[in-house]
Amino acid sequence: MKDIGVGLIGTGFMGKCHALAWRSVGGVFAEAGRPRLVHLGEANAELARTRAAEFGFEKASGDWRAVIEDPGVDVVSLTTPNKFHAEMATAALEAGKHLWCEKPMAPTFAEAEAMAAAARKAGTVAILGYNYIQSPAIRQIGALLAEGRIGTLNHLRIEMDEDFMADPHAPFGWRHDAASGYGALDDFAVHPLSLIAVLFGRVARVVCDMAKPHAERITASGEARAVETWDIASVLMRLESGLSATLQVNRAAWGRKGRICVQIFGSEGTILFDQERFNEFQLYLTSDRPEEQGFRTVLIGPQHQPYSSFVPAPGHGLGFNDLKIIECRELIARIGGDIGARLIGFDEGLEIERTVHAMARSHQEGGWVDVR
Amino acid sequence: MKDIGVGLIGTGFMGKCHALAWRSVGGVFAEAGRPRLVHLGEANAELARTRAAEFGFEKASGDWRAVIEDPGVDVVSLTTPNKFHAEMATAALEAGKHLWCEKPMAPTFAEAEAMAAAARKAGTVAILGYNYIQSPAIRQIGALLAEGRIGTLNHLRIEMDEDFMADPHAPFGWRHDAASGYGALDDFAVHPLSLIAVLFGRVARVVCDMAKPHAERITASGEARAVETWDIASVLMRLESGLSATLQVNRAAWGRKGRICVQIFGSEGTILFDQERFNEFQLYLTSDRPEEQGFRTVLIGPQHQPYSSFVPAPGHGLGFNDLKIIECRELIARIGGDIGARLIGFDEGLEIERTVHAMARSHQEGGWVDVR
Amino acid sequence: MKDIGVGLIGTGFMGKCHALAWRSVGGVFAEAGRPRLVHLGEANAELARTRAAEFGFEKASGDWRAVIEDPGVDVVSLTTPNKFHAEMATAALEAGKHLWCEKPMAPTFAEAEAMAAAARKAGTVAILGYNYIQSPAIRQIGALLAEGRIGTLNHLRIEMDEDFMADPHAPFGWRHDAASGYGALDDFAVHPLSLIAVLFGRVARVVCDMAKPHAERITASGEARAVETWDIASVLMRLESGLSATLQVNRAAWGRKGRICVQIFGSEGTILFDQERFNEFQLYLTSDRPEEQGFRTVLIGPQHQPYSSFVPAPGHGLGFNDLKIIECRELIARIGGDIGARLIGFDEGLEIERTVHAMARSHQEGGWVDVR
Amino acid sequence: MKDIGVGLIGTGFMGKCHALAWRSVGGVFAEAGRPRLVHLGEANAELARTRAAEFGFEKASGDWRAVIEDPGVDVVSLTTPNKFHAEMATAALEAGKHLWCEKPMAPTFAEAEAMAAAARKAGTVAILGYNYIQSPAIRQIGALLAEGRIGTLNHLRIEMDEDFMADPHAPFGWRHDAASGYGALDDFAVHPLSLIAVLFGRVARVVCDMAKPHAERITASGEARAVETWDIASVLMRLESGLSATLQVNRAAWGRKGRICVQIFGSEGTILFDQERFNEFQLYLTSDRPEEQGFRTVLIGPQHQPYSSFVPAPGHGLGFNDLKIIECRELIARIGGDIGARLIGFDEGLEIERTVHAMARSHQEGGWVDVR
Repeated sequence: MKDIGVGLIGTGFMGKCHALAWRSVGGVFAEAGRPRLVHLGEANAELARTRAAEFGFEKASGDWRAVIEDPGVDVVSLTTPNKFHAEMATAALEAGKHLWCEKPMAPTFAEAEAMAAAARKAGTVAILGYNYIQSPAIRQIGALLAEGRIGTLNHLRIEMDEDFMADPHAPFGWRHDAASGYGALDDFAVHPLSLIAVLFGRVARVVCDMAKPHAERITASGEARAVETWDIASVLMRLESGLSATLQVNRAAWGRKGRICVQIFGSEGTILFDQERFNEFQLYLTSDRPEEQGFRTVLIGPQHQPYSSFVPAPGHGLGFNDLKIIECRELIARIGGDIGARLIGFDEGLEIERTVHAMARSHQEGGWVDVR
Repeated sequence: MKDIGVGLIGTGFMGKCHALAWRSVGGVFAEAGRPRLVHLGEANAELARTRAAEFGFEKASGDWRAVIEDPGVDVVSLTTPNKFHAEMATAALEAGKHLWCEKPMAPTFAEAEAMAAAARKAGTVAILGYNYIQSPAIRQIGALLAEGRIGTLNHLRIEMDEDFMADPHAPFGWRHDAASGYGALDDFAVHPLSLIAVLFGRVARVVCDMAKPHAERITASGEARAVETWDIASVLMRLESGLSATLQVNRAAWGRKGRICVQIFGSEGTILFDQERFNEFQLYLTSDRPEEQGFRTVLIGPQHQPYSSFVPAPGHGLGFNDLKIIECRELIARIGGDIGARLIGFDEGLEIERTVHAMARSHQEGGWVDVR
Repeated sequence: MKDIGVGLIGTGFMGKCHALAWRSVGGVFAEAGRPRLVHLGEANAELARTRAAEFGFEKASGDWRAVIEDPGVDVVSLTTPNKFHAEMATAALEAGKHLWCEKPMAPTFAEAEAMAAAARKAGTVAILGYNYIQSPAIRQIGALLAEGRIGTLNHLRIEMDEDFMADPHAPFGWRHDAASGYGALDDFAVHPLSLIAVLFGRVARVVCDMAKPHAERITASGEARAVETWDIASVLMRLESGLSATLQVNRAAWGRKGRICVQIFGSEGTILFDQERFNEFQLYLTSDRPEEQGFRTVLIGPQHQPYSSFVPAPGHGLGFNDLKIIECRELIARIGGDIGARLIGFDEGLEIERTVHAMARSHQEGGWVDVR
Repeated sequence: MKDIGVGLIGTGFMGKCHALAWRSVGGVFAEAGRPRLVHLGEANAELARTRAAEFGFEKASGDWRAVIEDPGVDVVSLTTPNKFHAEMATAALEAGKHLWCEKPMAPTFAEAEAMAAAARKAGTVAILGYNYIQSPAIRQIGALLAEGRIGTLNHLRIEMDEDFMADPHAPFGWRHDAASGYGALDDFAVHPLSLIAVLFGRVARVVCDMAKPHAERITASGEARAVETWDIASVLMRLESGLSATLQVNRAAWGRKGRICVQIFGSEGTILFDQERFNEFQLYLTSDRPEEQGFRTVLIGPQHQPYSSFVPAPGHGLGFNDLKIIECRELIARIGGDIGARLIGFDEGLEIERTVHAMARSHQEGGWVDVR
């Protein structure tokens, strides 16, 4: 395979994260080849040039279309705010590019559907940046579930909490505007749903209740404005498999910085995971001697793939940016024809969005709602 | 106050626990006086005599009515299975006794209502054994909430998990029979609801989903029988205060031995608690310096009442039985006229039962249900 | 066996703890019979009467000799400050009583030797209150070591930390006076040494370094006085078995409330324990599958003796006072002839004191010291 | 500053780690410029070419001298086994290159001294790869200590444990040969000593005891051979400041994967840290309200430098390789003239080696030893 040519649109949190992944992936994973950082697009030419210099891209443009049309670009990393996704993603796909689009897909389900349709039509690889599915711990958990290590599953709980919307004195911002979506559902719930998609399958039915910790906030002009989005959502779910599950998200949870707490209960054991300590997971097995049964805290190491590509010795710990490097490796593998690569494609991503919209509908209608 | 005369009916797990509390309470708390262990009732005279000797009661009877009618008995500890509660409690109250009844009140709401009515009519002290509300940590949490230490509350989550119903190979027992109630709701949900009653007030609305981890179990006669109760229940709630909350219980949760995990989110901080480590709680405060903010693990000590009556030095830890001693002290105080004693009376207990039945109704009906 | 008659001398922290144990032991352990609380001695008659009423003793005296000479007293609980131990213990033993003496034995080694000699001569049961050896977790750890569950031991570390001497502004007290002993060695080191005695055997050689966090403190008369005791001691040790070990104690360790942290390394696993969470221990086994190896947190339950005498269900937790109840049960068993009861007798206690004095000698002399 | 030209010698664990750092540093830290990966040296030309392709170096040589003599190389990353350090480091320094040498310096103190002398003579920047000093948590701890946040220090404990030498069945290897050094002292103790150097200053006196968990191991030829190195070392120390401290290392500690546990006790608080969870640290402050005092678990985030250069949001976690990127940034800053960059230079490194040799001498001689 020839070395892949990379275009990057957007250079915020996720833009930098993609750039770092593209720079490192070949050093970490020899099989990933040597991607070329070809063309970077930003809102204006000057910013584009600055970032291109920092991130090591060859070319820079103030017009994202130049990136998409660049014949040297094979794959586009799309990391702009999600209201721009539909237009840019569709254009990139129509230009025959592979696409690595940050989550979530788009504010409306119709836009997300259009994006998925465009991907199907283009036939290129189009994936979403659900990086939490990439960690060695989550992979190991997947392997344990596939093996039936904790028996038949009987219940699942997932919580995702952060505190960036917790401060009552923070001003009114775009995330408080209904135009940004529902709130925590768009921001957070999609992440746990990506784990559910990979580990447990589709969601069938939901009942959801949302809450607003802060009824109003002060705008830049000094007036109080009603907050239109919900920072808290709690959901009861049934999966298509019949598994009973709950999902709870709170972006106003003081003290929580990046928690995604997963509890999986089975007939022969229990698995626990928390993204705040994603280099560990916990496992309880009934096959242990009775007087020794307890939750093992398993530290990720070389026996959990693909940890050893980063560090050969155990206990050294991966970082968040390393998850994006793994995702990048999977993307390159998929582009190279590996259909087993671990990724959330546009069709799977569309299912996640469908579920989120069903949750919001349940809140509005006040009862159980079928996802499909 | 004269030293109180104690009758005990039932000598299982909770019966022994009551007996130990009555023996110790005066030694731990000087103000509790010297209760006399007067009369013990069991299913037959021989067992009653054996247990009376072990537990230190003066008299023993194979007929519970003898205990209730004993003029030397001022207060009755009622610790029989809950299907006997209504008859025995009503008789004790009609005999003018104070009553310390184990939770939950009774299998049906009608019986519970009758018990509460009998208590109101008797005018004696009638309380339920919700001992988890007694721990120093929960008291301290209550004090912090009352002070507004974590600001305005915006969300509450409670989970209660044990694993005594997790084994798929365990035989069909009385807890699998619908006659015992709903399952985890009766067994477990009442405990978190007692914490909610003490700390947050009444529940207004609920939506509940229950699950059966094991569809059938083998009876003593070797046949498979359908399990009629639910070991798992998940609930979305709104309290009368408007607070959004969730409650999740699972008595088939391998590895969980006595977990009651509480997460309280406020506008200026967060409080965490887990009954499995009930000598600790966790507190996050936004008033800490930004670079030092984190969850404090506070170990219970003499500064948290009534720890110092047990041990004068910090870090030594209370045990479960000590919670019952505290409850006993509160009961004696209430009998002595202290209306501020920390207890769940029959009327508050009835509210808990009402909420549990509303949850079950929601599961059956498939949607939100008002508690009242 | 006839019910044992109990005398108690001293009613401070440990005096109350003994009294509670004597009151409860028969209720918790049916085999312990029904000890009678016969005679309580305190510094004056009035205090003695008050405490006797609170703790439930039949008689009260302002003279401790009256307790010792009381023919109704079979066993004496001796809980006065340790400078009184030698005289009182010797008298009690000479009076033919069994003796339950709080640790440590005495300020000087000569006194401790005299006490041990008196015990040998009396032939009654004479034990020391090293209650930390009694917890179910420590018993289970002992069983695991005896079984060779973690293979051949290669290293041991013990730390004991509290913070009651940490405050630099606290006034000069008796514990700062050289007459009280060395400091943390007497106060703390004896506890870890009791665990070593029970689990690992005798100490052969030590090298010790001590430190004073606060050079001087203010006396009641407002003057600065040099602190004469050491709050911190660090020790390298070799046991008679050849095992290399370290012992570290600090009674000026802010935040530590009752920590006794034990780390036991073997050729096939590791065991960890911390008294601050003494209802748990941790176990790592190389026999686990490689991708699942981790420290199990084992919660104490009915499968760990003698937990189930307190509570039949797991996860409920014992408290510090419960350890004293277990110790009391062991003492009663020993008095009844059970030579396998788990106790530190006066001869074993003397070895602990010998080791402590060797540590102090090492600090003074500046090098390795043989214990014997 | 012109973009720096990089040479790399050695491509094992640390070689790859250096390569990844050089690739990423400019993307993470804009101020680090764009280092050019110029020349890679390995044991033979073919391996060098393969690795150069993987890691992205322009040139490859089977002779390390070619790297050192390359005029395009400004700085040499030296990651070969430490027995080669003295020769290669001296040559690189004599060639006028800056040098980033992995720790420890060399097997003998004489070689280390020669290296330090060569660095002084060359006048270029010569540093050692003590990356654990670079983490945001350790920086924050340093800031807290500098501020006196926990008052006057009274004691320090450090432990470093891993388990890669714990398996009794592993064959005899080079690390068991006395030619490799003392054992855990060289391998591990140097890391804690680097933390001590940065946070607390120099060590004055030590007493050390070492142990061999496994007396002999099987060689490749199937014979038992005596193990010549010590996997366990325990040390009492006094720093030049007078602070009492202990250091314990064990590379045969089953279950420990990368533990470096630090306990710092002060007159107004305590700080705890463990490298296995290096995205956190714990802080106890006496200035907290008494009923709220407890160890805070502080999760590293944007308020702890230089976290935000990796991720703008808290709770996402850095990985081990990120520490090397930070070290690389510091090195570039030092080369650029920033004398405040956080690094262990050859002179500071020599002090660490001097302390290690003093420890070994103490073990041999059996008593306290002055480091200088």
